[in-house]
Amino acid sequence: MTTLPPWLATVKFDENGLVPVIAQDATQGTVLMVAWMNAEALSETVQTKQAVYWSRSRQKLWRKGEESGHVQHIHEIRLDCDADVILLSVTQDGGIACHTGRKSCFYQRLEGSGNQPHWVSTEPVLKDPKLIYK
Amino acid sequence: MTTLPPWLATVKFDENGLVPVIAQDATQGTVLMVAWMNAEALSETVQTKQAVYWSRSRQKLWRKGEESGHVQHIHEIRLDCDADVILLSVTQDGGIACHTGRKSCFYQRLEGSGNQPHWVSTEPVLKDPKLIYK
Repeated sequence: MTTLPPWLATVKFDENGLVPVIAQDATQGTVLMVAWMNAEALSETVQTKQAVYWSRSRQKLWRKGEESGHVQHIHEIRLDCDADVILLSVTQDGGIACHTGRKSCFYQRLEGSGNQPHWVSTEPVLKDPKLIYK
Repeated sequence: MTTLPPWLATVKFDENGLVPVIAQDATQGTVLMVAWMNAEALSETVQTKQAVYWSRSRQKLWRKGEESGHVQHIHEIRLDCDADVILLSVTQDGGIACHTGRKSCFYQRLEGSGNQPHWVSTEPVLKDPKLIYK
């Protein structure tokens, strides 16, 4: 492995070489999703100004939108105080970040209280996933 | 370990029994911080309506604000499509989430482009950490 440039060496990748990344809508502030990047994905994200993640399930680079068209255009990249989480400010093509066809992946809300709360799906499906992944 | 109630069993804790948690300001939408919870921390968060994390460095429950006074009051708890990330909507006491005395932990912004971008601290320190942690 080649030596990382200083800006990339600042990021504390975990024991698997990954860092969690939050994508947030640049105008509305909605938290859209969380995924992971390795150094290569982060580097390509900076160069292309489009979000590139590391797919842990497929074990390869995941250029967000390559299948769905739901590309995330980068406005800003931030790093937290511990340098182990990244926050992207993005414009979400299609207004859909989630593979379920919803705007945000965070569509399950905890309702009720006491000992029996439960998760409720709250956000509308904007597009049938069958039509997204043809 | 006792059997988890259904709402808690829905959450996919990782191999260390932890799930990453994003705290977002309820009114402004600012992403304040990311920390971790185990099942006990999440359960206590729901019961007390205040954010309780698991400190990986100290290996114990971290009742946010117990030292600093910077308690996070819970408005809403969301779970993502994979059930492995939690999003809290909170009111942040003191307006400071970060141990550096800043509103948000995400105060380092990547600036410049090409091969030599660099991280720049962008947010003001609202309170000297020496005064927060006496």
